[in-house]
Amino acid sequence: MIQEQHQARTVGGTPQAAGHASLRRTNLSLVLRHLREHGSTSRSDIAEATGLHRATVSNLMVELLDRRLVQEVGVDHAGAVGRPRRAVALHGAHIGALGLEINVDYVAAHGVDLGGNVLVDRRLGFDAAGSGSSRSLRELGLTAREAIEEMTRAGATPAGIGVAVPGLVDVDHGVVAFAPNLDWHDVPLAARLSSALGPLRVPVTVDNDANLAALAEYTSGVAAGTADMVYLTGEVGVGGGIIVDGRLLRGADGFSGEVGHLPVDPSGGRCGCGRFGCWETKVGLAALVRMATPERAYGPGSGPVPDPEERVAEIARDLAAGDQQTLVAVAEVGRWLGLGGSILVNLFNPRVIVVGGYFATLAGWLLPFAQAELERLVVAGPAARCRFVASDHGFGAASRGAANVVINQIVNDPTAIMRTG
Amino acid sequence: MIQEQHQARTVGGTPQAAGHASLRRTNLSLVLRHLREHGSTSRSDIAEATGLHRATVSNLMVELLDRRLVQEVGVDHAGAVGRPRRAVALHGAHIGALGLEINVDYVAAHGVDLGGNVLVDRRLGFDAAGSGSSRSLRELGLTAREAIEEMTRAGATPAGIGVAVPGLVDVDHGVVAFAPNLDWHDVPLAARLSSALGPLRVPVTVDNDANLAALAEYTSGVAAGTADMVYLTGEVGVGGGIIVDGRLLRGADGFSGEVGHLPVDPSGGRCGCGRFGCWETKVGLAALVRMATPERAYGPGSGPVPDPEERVAEIARDLAAGDQQTLVAVAEVGRWLGLGGSILVNLFNPRVIVVGGYFATLAGWLLPFAQAELERLVVAGPAARCRFVASDHGFGAASRGAANVVINQIVNDPTAIMRTG
Repeated sequence: MIQEQHQARTVGGTPQAAGHASLRRTNLSLVLRHLREHGSTSRSDIAEATGLHRATVSNLMVELLDRRLVQEVGVDHAGAVGRPRRAVALHGAHIGALGLEINVDYVAAHGVDLGGNVLVDRRLGFDAAGSGSSRSLRELGLTAREAIEEMTRAGATPAGIGVAVPGLVDVDHGVVAFAPNLDWHDVPLAARLSSALGPLRVPVTVDNDANLAALAEYTSGVAAGTADMVYLTGEVGVGGGIIVDGRLLRGADGFSGEVGHLPVDPSGGRCGCGRFGCWETKVGLAALVRMATPERAYGPGSGPVPDPEERVAEIARDLAAGDQQTLVAVAEVGRWLGLGGSILVNLFNPRVIVVGGYFATLAGWLLPFAQAELERLVVAGPAARCRFVASDHGFGAASRGAANVVINQIVNDPTAIMRTG
Repeated sequence: MIQEQHQARTVGGTPQAAGHASLRRTNLSLVLRHLREHGSTSRSDIAEATGLHRATVSNLMVELLDRRLVQEVGVDHAGAVGRPRRAVALHGAHIGALGLEINVDYVAAHGVDLGGNVLVDRRLGFDAAGSGSSRSLRELGLTAREAIEEMTRAGATPAGIGVAVPGLVDVDHGVVAFAPNLDWHDVPLAARLSSALGPLRVPVTVDNDANLAALAEYTSGVAAGTADMVYLTGEVGVGGGIIVDGRLLRGADGFSGEVGHLPVDPSGGRCGCGRFGCWETKVGLAALVRMATPERAYGPGSGPVPDPEERVAEIARDLAAGDQQTLVAVAEVGRWLGLGGSILVNLFNPRVIVVGGYFATLAGWLLPFAQAELERLVVAGPAARCRFVASDHGFGAASRGAANVVINQIVNDPTAIMRTG
């Protein structure tokens, strides 16, 4: 259809070169997206579904096969009457996408190829909060380099790197404007990581961790395809990624979804951000640890929690053993989770709130309290059906989402790959 | 371009009848939208801008002229070299759109024709909160009937009625699910108003007042065209309409933007909704009146305020006279307005928060406090530039928005008019 639009715009029968290149890119993308969403299929089915001429599809397919983005996969008999048709499918095993995440206490990497095969999936403990941005970026660079080597050995050259960061990100410039729990201000992450990777010359993009995790949940997972959805990270900090009508909500500056510092209790305690009564001080991991095991408390606010995974495992063991103090603490955190959730439901009216991180680990104990409080507070009452659901992506949601974004970029503009491939 | 897409989908050279009708509707709409956005212009400019063939545009224009949706407006010399071209413009003076609003203490009507001329603009005091849904609907029906008669006398037959209601609306069925400040539950407003209008047979749609006001602000007014924007009603209740990336945020059930009952103070007073510390109990008109003139207080929560306009005028006079108690009260309400605003900025990252109702009337006193508190609390700090701005639509924003929606329906499907016109 795009081609026809172009023809209609052509003046005096002379095709416009720039328009033609962009048109071909759009049509290549249209075909790749169709294959990605529908799996293997025939050329005539692609023509039918996209509205492109059969001849145009065949022509595009020559280029996609030539670039090994697509492969012939034999004969498609599905529902066919008459002669069987040759089917094609996404290939791209030589093209990789790398997602990285740096968070308060770990670095993660998730590497895939265009065909969806997972080549790298790794999480390493690292005290980013205590290391400053320079040492953290060096660690991130090492992790990236190792992942790239591993993917390359497996035959896939990374075409791009996406990095997830728990903070406010200027996506256009790849700059972390402010990451409260890392104490980062105006860190030009994309430029620094690119220069650390030097001759590898892989393009780097940066985004908020909760945004990327929300995209991953929207693509696959417990609430995949839910057009109105909120994702909450459950770490030392709490971040939000918001899908509205099937699209990530970004806002005017890309700073949307900052749920952690919602002012929920004017008489509450001091937050790491300097304000009082932020939601994070009620539901962040530090709050739970403080309430459940006050003998191990380590100062106010949402500062780093030593060995967070060990703390969460310990709390889970205490809960299983019926420890009264821990049960009371989890109920309290659950209710505050529900109160914050009700704010999100009143404002966004999502169908599902997917919770990750420690919220997911302790979901069985936390979510009943959260769900009850949510339903008590939501203005629309039962008419606004919204469930808390635990993510099954584990701690990898954000890096997985970062890799997805790179894949989407490739699918949206396959010609960029071709020039470098 | 749509036509070409259709041709690409046509099988075996036989055009498909259903597809053809929908195609023609889409192309008629494309032309009308272009005229609406760009004013008078020539057929060849329309062809150029829309990508339709010149012959197709001429053909569509015959139909649009015939139906008096478009008129010839003489000769367009703008920027022309060579021979002058005949220009066309939107006409539609015979087609009307009526917006109505029912709120706690008034009913409003805003009638326009397709060409944008305002034919009716009226607001009547009415105690809807104290009247129950049946008497309120009778009042709304009378107002609608008078407005329709007036518009018809002016030569414009209303093609549709939009109704704004301060509550949760099931837009698909025209049912008000819950309007706390009217004490309405599951009121089938569209069906009841249609039946009250009887043989006039004008289609009725219903939507939330803040949503419609937000659409009106997005279309014209102090923040027109701002892609990321929040609108707040400032009445006895406080509602929100949210524009995200140029589109109204509706959510999974159409219940988004319920800002009035955000739980901002767990230790706060009881709200009319039965919960405690809702934002409305801090910034609703009742809260201000209670704080500014406690000698006239009339119970807790956000119940109806007698003579609200008179109260606001009185408060404005006291402020101008430097009354200490009133100044303190406005500062307090302004700070709570800023706190709630910071929640909206943290979550939506809008460029502007447009305030209507009494917030707009008292903007000069309220907004400095609100803006300062907003800037103190927003996580992104100055990087997320967001200003409070007073609406200049007065109390008519919602009914104006409701009329806009009807106009949009006509422009999106001009053939519906033609069948009835």
